[in-house]
Amino acid sequence: MPLKKDVIVVGAGMAGLRTAQLLRQQGISVEVLEARNRVGGRIYTTQVAGTAFDLGGQWVGPQQVRLLKLADELGIKTYPQYHQGTKILSWQGKQRRFRGEVPWLSPLAMYELWRLERFTKKVCSQIPPDAPWNTPEAKAWDGQTLEAWKQQFFRSKGAKLFLDIVARAVCTTEPGELSLLYFLSYLRWGNGLNTLISIPNGAQQDRFVGGVQPLCQRLADELGQHLHLETTVLSIRQTDQDVIVHTNQNEYTAQRVILAIPPILAGDISYEPALPIERHQLTKHMPMGSVIKYVAVYDRPFWREKGFSGEAFCDSGPCVTTFDGCTSTGTPALVTFSDGAVAREYAAKTPEERKDAVLKQFSELFGPEADKPVAFAEQNWLAEAWGRGCYAGVMGPGVMTAWGPSLAAPCGRIHWAGTETATQWMGYIEGALQSAERVTQEVLPMLRQAAG
Amino acid sequence: MPLKKDVIVVGAGMAGLRTAQLLRQQGISVEVLEARNRVGGRIYTTQVAGTAFDLGGQWVGPQQVRLLKLADELGIKTYPQYHQGTKILSWQGKQRRFRGEVPWLSPLAMYELWRLERFTKKVCSQIPPDAPWNTPEAKAWDGQTLEAWKQQFFRSKGAKLFLDIVARAVCTTEPGELSLLYFLSYLRWGNGLNTLISIPNGAQQDRFVGGVQPLCQRLADELGQHLHLETTVLSIRQTDQDVIVHTNQNEYTAQRVILAIPPILAGDISYEPALPIERHQLTKHMPMGSVIKYVAVYDRPFWREKGFSGEAFCDSGPCVTTFDGCTSTGTPALVTFSDGAVAREYAAKTPEERKDAVLKQFSELFGPEADKPVAFAEQNWLAEAWGRGCYAGVMGPGVMTAWGPSLAAPCGRIHWAGTETATQWMGYIEGALQSAERVTQEVLPMLRQAAG
Repeated sequence: MPLKKDVIVVGAGMAGLRTAQLLRQQGISVEVLEARNRVGGRIYTTQVAGTAFDLGGQWVGPQQVRLLKLADELGIKTYPQYHQGTKILSWQGKQRRFRGEVPWLSPLAMYELWRLERFTKKVCSQIPPDAPWNTPEAKAWDGQTLEAWKQQFFRSKGAKLFLDIVARAVCTTEPGELSLLYFLSYLRWGNGLNTLISIPNGAQQDRFVGGVQPLCQRLADELGQHLHLETTVLSIRQTDQDVIVHTNQNEYTAQRVILAIPPILAGDISYEPALPIERHQLTKHMPMGSVIKYVAVYDRPFWREKGFSGEAFCDSGPCVTTFDGCTSTGTPALVTFSDGAVAREYAAKTPEERKDAVLKQFSELFGPEADKPVAFAEQNWLAEAWGRGCYAGVMGPGVMTAWGPSLAAPCGRIHWAGTETATQWMGYIEGALQSAERVTQEVLPMLRQAAG
Repeated sequence: MPLKKDVIVVGAGMAGLRTAQLLRQQGISVEVLEARNRVGGRIYTTQVAGTAFDLGGQWVGPQQVRLLKLADELGIKTYPQYHQGTKILSWQGKQRRFRGEVPWLSPLAMYELWRLERFTKKVCSQIPPDAPWNTPEAKAWDGQTLEAWKQQFFRSKGAKLFLDIVARAVCTTEPGELSLLYFLSYLRWGNGLNTLISIPNGAQQDRFVGGVQPLCQRLADELGQHLHLETTVLSIRQTDQDVIVHTNQNEYTAQRVILAIPPILAGDISYEPALPIERHQLTKHMPMGSVIKYVAVYDRPFWREKGFSGEAFCDSGPCVTTFDGCTSTGTPALVTFSDGAVAREYAAKTPEERKDAVLKQFSELFGPEADKPVAFAEQNWLAEAWGRGCYAGVMGPGVMTAWGPSLAAPCGRIHWAGTETATQWMGYIEGALQSAERVTQEVLPMLRQAAG
């Protein structure tokens, strides 16, 4: 006999787990279905040389109040991301060392970056975060790529390079693939350009002791037997009375189903009746960004000893952006990312080739000690069966204005959560938490009196 | 016991059917699996007021030699698309009547259209049709939308409008969504801009007596019991020896499988082992264009009697492009298309609302007689479960250079056909036929001696 519940939540990433927690706090019966053999989704903490490292999302900023509050409730502490010392910009084969936010490029570049800051600040005040498609300039901005805009807005090579690195690091996508409207909305959702790219007072300010996944695991523990791993949703059928979720394991019946997964994965499920055209099309128009994350553990933080912060920004791969990764327990490490086109280039290589290339680039940046790590780990998010990309769903030109309004709009008994539906911090863990709050408030008044 | 064959073909559109025919002519055993309850795919001929009309692909041009030869072999005749008389351009609320290829807009616009023709001719000689991503300017062209390029290349409103109508009519997509490289490649694949938009000597020169679907039906008849309708492929598993195709009906084992379906639909199938990253990503980055096609049948061709050719090009919907649709048997009709954003706008309305809007616009264009058709039919391709769009898979910026090389590259025992894999007439029936020839040549040498 099929199990009957108030709500089925699909996806045990942060959005799904937090949604289940909030609903259960209201006395609602919930089952959570997860295709992977673990919880966390795009949050993934693993042991490298006996220490916990995040191969998925890892940072929290002071504006991300929901995530900080949840960690506090669960008794999980934060510690600052290390950023003291000299940073490196590797550009056109040459290394420039700098301190402060941005390297000195040229007078024109510095003027243009000041113009960029002014422009994005003004724009962020114009974009309604819950409906960027209603921005007065939405159509014009959505009709061009960030790349084409960049070529018109900037004359200096330095400012262009800066924006390339920002697009890759923040959206894990090339400027030539991004809708300008989507990129500007991303800045809006994340409290502006400076917040997004900064360590102190920004989105990279702090890390979690023991990694982020323990937060998800605590929420999963609360669920107990109501969490079902390795359970792939194949089809969702809506009737007048109920919604029936068919999986590779059991069938579940509920009043409402909440899909807390990226739109592109929701597109892999069969729906009866079919999803409305606009929602179906959205699932086909919002692919994921491309990123590979690497951690190298060392016996000592030799870069710190040389006065480096561990931060490096490079115009060629595999290491696009690199950071100090030393843990709160004192394990020395460097963390680096291949983003966008660089991720694609390196995804085609073997793990051995990637490791060799990362260590070679580390050595060029920080010295020959980098070549001998104690341990090395990587997560190729492009190869993940339940995601096939990170950090978030990305919109090319035209998609936001055409299909954006269906991002969070319920389809009968089907509701949507996940960071892609957030109107604050879209693409971040904080966005996942905001989406959980929104979908809970949306679903609660629609539930019939609980069966008791 | 599972049925064992040399080759399984998935999709009974023109590409799949022709592939099966070519393989069987070489003595290869083939089963064809089709999810719909009919053959033809994006070719769909139906009876309206007792006469056959094409609600899918309908035209053939003199350069489309494969399609003309196939029709000749099957004994299906063509007749010219009617184009004599006055055409209408409806723009910013005003109607302009004209004869010849293009309406007189303004001296600047005419000069700019001449520049466009020169530019596209030069470009077409530079793009390698089997690898547009290798064009010297590929990265720059793929990093911008057709819209952004248009705003820089043109100053006149008239030339901009012309390009909007071309993008919508040819690619069923807004210029703001299209990669410039994809658009220019589309022109290259289709023998240039003039060929693509022309009736005489162009892609719209002729129609088929009785419609196009009978061509598919003849190929299906040859297949007999080896064609399986309403058979949805759920998963494809490759082993060292074979490939196993699991459907909602039976399981099929073969040496090779050929997927003759658009990339976005191939993305709905589960693969074991998983598809290579670049192929999987392609399936998530190539959504279909948007189009709704309408046919109104009348008791007499009143527009011809008034000197109109039936052609009308409008900057507002539902009727973006309209043509005379009178059949070879003398049934008077008008045929019209909602493309791109207009298709999306009207897809959200009811069939009744769409019919009323089409007839109202017909009346404004051709007179009040248009308001009283004998019969009316439509095909909303956005709502089709096995396609969710037409004419073809579309590429936004960055997709061609990132994932284009995997369009036709085999993945182990899986091979790809369909018009999206064509290097001539991509998006057209001719492209489907070319892909069938290519994949047949690709697969034949890989087949073990037939079992006998």
